[in-house]
Amino acid sequence: MVARIRLGMVGGGQGAFIGEVHRFAARLDDRFEFCAGALSADPERARESARELGISADRTYVSFEEMARVEPQREDGVQAVAIVTPNHLHFEPAKALLAEGIHVICDKPLTNDYAQAQELAEIVSKSNAQFAVTYNYSGYPLVREARHLVASGALGAIRLVQVEYPQDWLATNIEASGQKQAAWRTDPARAGAGGSIGDIGTHAFHLAGFVCGMQPTSLLADLSSFVPGRVLDDNAHILLRYASGARGMLWASQVAAGQENALRLRVYGETGSLEWFQENPNQLIHRPLGEPMRTLTRGGAGLSASVVTRIPAGHPEGFIEGFATLYSDFADLIASSDGIKHGNEDDPSRLLPTVADGVKGVRFVTAAVESMTNGSSWVTL
Amino acid sequence: MVARIRLGMVGGGQGAFIGEVHRFAARLDDRFEFCAGALSADPERARESARELGISADRTYVSFEEMARVEPQREDGVQAVAIVTPNHLHFEPAKALLAEGIHVICDKPLTNDYAQAQELAEIVSKSNAQFAVTYNYSGYPLVREARHLVASGALGAIRLVQVEYPQDWLATNIEASGQKQAAWRTDPARAGAGGSIGDIGTHAFHLAGFVCGMQPTSLLADLSSFVPGRVLDDNAHILLRYASGARGMLWASQVAAGQENALRLRVYGETGSLEWFQENPNQLIHRPLGEPMRTLTRGGAGLSASVVTRIPAGHPEGFIEGFATLYSDFADLIASSDGIKHGNEDDPSRLLPTVADGVKGVRFVTAAVESMTNGSSWVTL
Amino acid sequence: MVARIRLGMVGGGQGAFIGEVHRFAARLDDRFEFCAGALSADPERARESARELGISADRTYVSFEEMARVEPQREDGVQAVAIVTPNHLHFEPAKALLAEGIHVICDKPLTNDYAQAQELAEIVSKSNAQFAVTYNYSGYPLVREARHLVASGALGAIRLVQVEYPQDWLATNIEASGQKQAAWRTDPARAGAGGSIGDIGTHAFHLAGFVCGMQPTSLLADLSSFVPGRVLDDNAHILLRYASGARGMLWASQVAAGQENALRLRVYGETGSLEWFQENPNQLIHRPLGEPMRTLTRGGAGLSASVVTRIPAGHPEGFIEGFATLYSDFADLIASSDGIKHGNEDDPSRLLPTVADGVKGVRFVTAAVESMTNGSSWVTL
Amino acid sequence: MVARIRLGMVGGGQGAFIGEVHRFAARLDDRFEFCAGALSADPERARESARELGISADRTYVSFEEMARVEPQREDGVQAVAIVTPNHLHFEPAKALLAEGIHVICDKPLTNDYAQAQELAEIVSKSNAQFAVTYNYSGYPLVREARHLVASGALGAIRLVQVEYPQDWLATNIEASGQKQAAWRTDPARAGAGGSIGDIGTHAFHLAGFVCGMQPTSLLADLSSFVPGRVLDDNAHILLRYASGARGMLWASQVAAGQENALRLRVYGETGSLEWFQENPNQLIHRPLGEPMRTLTRGGAGLSASVVTRIPAGHPEGFIEGFATLYSDFADLIASSDGIKHGNEDDPSRLLPTVADGVKGVRFVTAAVESMTNGSSWVTL
Repeated sequence: MVARIRLGMVGGGQGAFIGEVHRFAARLDDRFEFCAGALSADPERARESARELGISADRTYVSFEEMARVEPQREDGVQAVAIVTPNHLHFEPAKALLAEGIHVICDKPLTNDYAQAQELAEIVSKSNAQFAVTYNYSGYPLVREARHLVASGALGAIRLVQVEYPQDWLATNIEASGQKQAAWRTDPARAGAGGSIGDIGTHAFHLAGFVCGMQPTSLLADLSSFVPGRVLDDNAHILLRYASGARGMLWASQVAAGQENALRLRVYGETGSLEWFQENPNQLIHRPLGEPMRTLTRGGAGLSASVVTRIPAGHPEGFIEGFATLYSDFADLIASSDGIKHGNEDDPSRLLPTVADGVKGVRFVTAAVESMTNGSSWVTL
Repeated sequence: MVARIRLGMVGGGQGAFIGEVHRFAARLDDRFEFCAGALSADPERARESARELGISADRTYVSFEEMARVEPQREDGVQAVAIVTPNHLHFEPAKALLAEGIHVICDKPLTNDYAQAQELAEIVSKSNAQFAVTYNYSGYPLVREARHLVASGALGAIRLVQVEYPQDWLATNIEASGQKQAAWRTDPARAGAGGSIGDIGTHAFHLAGFVCGMQPTSLLADLSSFVPGRVLDDNAHILLRYASGARGMLWASQVAAGQENALRLRVYGETGSLEWFQENPNQLIHRPLGEPMRTLTRGGAGLSASVVTRIPAGHPEGFIEGFATLYSDFADLIASSDGIKHGNEDDPSRLLPTVADGVKGVRFVTAAVESMTNGSSWVTL
Repeated sequence: MVARIRLGMVGGGQGAFIGEVHRFAARLDDRFEFCAGALSADPERARESARELGISADRTYVSFEEMARVEPQREDGVQAVAIVTPNHLHFEPAKALLAEGIHVICDKPLTNDYAQAQELAEIVSKSNAQFAVTYNYSGYPLVREARHLVASGALGAIRLVQVEYPQDWLATNIEASGQKQAAWRTDPARAGAGGSIGDIGTHAFHLAGFVCGMQPTSLLADLSSFVPGRVLDDNAHILLRYASGARGMLWASQVAAGQENALRLRVYGETGSLEWFQENPNQLIHRPLGEPMRTLTRGGAGLSASVVTRIPAGHPEGFIEGFATLYSDFADLIASSDGIKHGNEDDPSRLLPTVADGVKGVRFVTAAVESMTNGSSWVTL
Repeated sequence: MVARIRLGMVGGGQGAFIGEVHRFAARLDDRFEFCAGALSADPERARESARELGISADRTYVSFEEMARVEPQREDGVQAVAIVTPNHLHFEPAKALLAEGIHVICDKPLTNDYAQAQELAEIVSKSNAQFAVTYNYSGYPLVREARHLVASGALGAIRLVQVEYPQDWLATNIEASGQKQAAWRTDPARAGAGGSIGDIGTHAFHLAGFVCGMQPTSLLADLSSFVPGRVLDDNAHILLRYASGARGMLWASQVAAGQENALRLRVYGETGSLEWFQENPNQLIHRPLGEPMRTLTRGGAGLSASVVTRIPAGHPEGFIEGFATLYSDFADLIASSDGIKHGNEDDPSRLLPTVADGVKGVRFVTAAVESMTNGSSWVTL
């Protein structure tokens, strides 16, 4: 086994969303060991969050500065750090950690400010440490397949890029109620100049560039704030032009009632098109001009070999999470174990399959064989 | 943090499929620590597999008997073991481990033999150790929601249970080519009396019972072996009857050309019906009689509160895997780090978003705002 | 123009469903002229129905016997008759009309009684008149394409035939309320020995045979009547066996809550499979073994040339009906014309596009060109 | 029966597309009698086309002027005329016919020229004749339901209108090959200033206005011509603004490879949204904010009562066309009748269900009952 990389985290304490996703992600392939954190600017919350996550007290920090100062002095200091704070708090920790030669994986958008972003790029270019931004949709197998298909010329020259990312969670003024995720994303001081364009428009923008292998050279925008009192845009209608003559439309919205996380990319070339939809990410539609539409599936027939996939075709990626839920149920069961058998089948709260369920399954098999042996007759179970 | 449970594994060495899924699952929620394994009956493969997985040499076993004998003597011995061997090798390790008071989580079907299954149930009932079978589809959030809806009476009395599980990976005689997964599943000595009914029919059977909260009392079967030379069934057509008067159909097939893993359950009651399809597991269709069809989504509006879900609505569960792929790419990048910056944007093999990608995203935001400020004019990027 | 065929109808008066569909169908391609009817056994309803449909009084009959006696004496007598009565009233009119050499197009099922059906076949074989049964799903373009694909060997030898036809309109005891369609279909005296199997099971059975080009040699059935007091089956679970070794499942239900008219056929062969779903009839799924799934569309790329289609690809067949609705709205407008312009755009009930709508469309075009000419600037409409 | 309206047609001769659709539409509900035509500017084609369609020679005209002059002199002269010529030939015939008091139903767009469109509106306003434009998507039942839902306030105030109409039939330079439909639509002299915006953009524009009950007050356009040598736009990216503050995007394309006729409208209001897709027109998606998505179906549960629909729920509108195909097959059969029975079941070209098919269906029913009677045993067919 290759040794696991020692990972720290800035941000991601109690009440955060994306920090936990980073931890799931770091754990899934067992390549990282999470061992240090500056999880909150609030010292008490930082300590409590670290305790819950199994971080030892001596590696629990109340600021990224402290982490950047102390960890390099340890022999087992962190090699990499995930930055999962709100947008305006990406730059400083990144700068401090890179200065210590610590690798950084940072949530998007990079910063609030364009000059700061350029400065950070400069810092990275001079550092030996590695740096990545979690435009996470580029990690989906069929997004990578789409990029491969475009690069391979399967669509011919690209003509049109239609990308959209509608959500509805800001359709009402929930920031007024103090909802933490909404509060910072609608606050120019913390989110920067962009509301929906920064939070999700940047995802759509990166996805389009990632798949098409080209960037627009100009844009034209119509930004709106539909919810009364909101300062930042909650809807963005943007036209794109590319050097090649290709054109595009980008729509990002957080007030599109009834849409959950409907990121969709369609790319049209001279000889075919592709469509990928994040809410059904295990399919990639390929429409070759003049031929029937093909549905490519994650791990399925007709894919290029290089795409990362952990489980066989037809098992959508939630398969792992479903399995994990059984394991966690089993952990609960063990944790509550006290010499009494729990979770028998009469217990209505018991969802974890029991040995009795196992027995029923075996009886199902033997009964089916028995029925067949008797000319397809009814067999009592 | 609650201490992690020390986990061992029997089976699941190199070339296995389900063992790795068990490890992903155990790791995701960070409730287990994988520390011992009898990963293969072949000593060399057992050692090599354990080494790859970071199991220390002194906890690498060549048989489950050895594991069951040695581990209990350690202070840090395993508390639980996952059994992920072929079907005919479930019973003996389960029996040996339970005898030591070690909790067992076992793959399905429980055993090949009905008498053995009953004996194992008897053993479990007398043991203080916990036991679970990984009928993993019962771990999906919307399957649990479906069970909840049925139990709550949302469908009225159940009339019809239509469950099917077609695949096509045994549509040709791949066992003849030595494909390992196919070889044991089509061999009565290792798979037992059931081919497709044991391997996937049992999943369909459990899923139907799990959601409906009731078991059929009799069945009638028409089993077939379509591929020449195959002894066990590769297709099963089964009729079901329930004590309540409900009826059902169960179809399991491993020769249904073009189907990947198309497990689908439909339950019809007096006042409505439900449909869940494993290949699109983040949706549950609810059709109340006389009202428009409703699409429930994982984490979305209108669900019962108790369902386990790790990420927000609209982020299908592959979201975590996509994120994890970025983390693993980042680990690769770090692993290859040698003082030279890798993965610049000119490197065609580089898929991980770079700082340059981050800068582009920030520029996208500022350009959009600039365009808007100038009356929706074109802005150069 | 080929002269239109003079058509009569038995059954199909006021309150009937399928009679009107036969008339739409006969009219669409302008091959028939509807000119005589015995539309109801109730003389008053027969006369009133005929009047509404523009049948002249001297060709309005109160019985099929009268029609069969009188029409042949006219020089312009009917050449063909559509029989659209309940099942038990197909045989006698068919026999009488065929005896006169009149072509017959008869709704399904042919008769209630097997001996009677065989007798009718005998009569047809000795008559010079043509005879057809309206198993109408065989008229869909993609059903014919499916038949063509199977016959061409695109799937290899057929292994599995899965056909189902769930509805829910008999989920409650609506026959007790006197609903006319339900009343005769649930009455053994009028519907025969089969409830759901006769009414819709026969459609599923014909569709499977039509597409596969083969008939099962034996069946095994589990029929149920779920609604209390109902005598005939309202749900049928049937297993099928074919001489070739192929197997099948047929499910017909009229109590499947939430299903409208969900006829679905899936055919699996050695090298691929097909799926067609009546509720989305403009698509045919083709899954070649080991290749990506293809979606064939009515009139679209990759179809065999011989399939009947009236409009271009992508215009689903409702296109014609939508167009027809505008024409009927226009007829209404003309009918109410009284020298005053109706339906101006301020009239909320006006749905038909007006000249003002036309003007707006032209202005849309010129404004778009004007915006483009001015560097994509905003143009007032 | 209300007397049928006497209908004439200008344009729509051999080789035309939309003229035939108008004739199907006029025939379906039997409200019109097609009796006169100026079907082509080419006298020979005009005569031949009229002959095929059963128009008598004395009502076959070689110009609309002749029709407008002669028909009013007949007692049975046309009451209404359909104009189905290319765009630049709408104005003159409309003007001439309206001057005679003849009702006009005209294809879209109204004219090529905005001044001409305004003049025509003026003429209509002064005439007693009725006038309609066939923006045919407004005739679909669920489009009318959508309009009703918006008007009823089901979505609250509208915020966003996203409408798109991608096709691919002009993805290559087919006009160069002389394809008639492409030739006039890409020729500014015949199509006017708009290419895709005139041909299909106007449909999208009307649909959005029809459903939303409001018109944009300004637009901003980015038009492109992707195919070398093409003068008119083949792709249009348009931003819309409404007086209420609502915003919209309109995309029309005839070079979107792989898209057939993918007109899609999405309307987002403060409390919910609607989505309708022309290629699956029997469904309307309604997403109430904070509740599960609902799928409304044509004729199904939960619709307003006033929508025109000809057949029951679940029978998509292609049902009528499928039925009509059987009738036309039957007409062919009769036409070829020569005292020999055609189309027996051994005839591979025979698709129309025969009496033998009818017998098989009856046997299916009796065999199912027999199997059931014998405890679900196998019965030979």
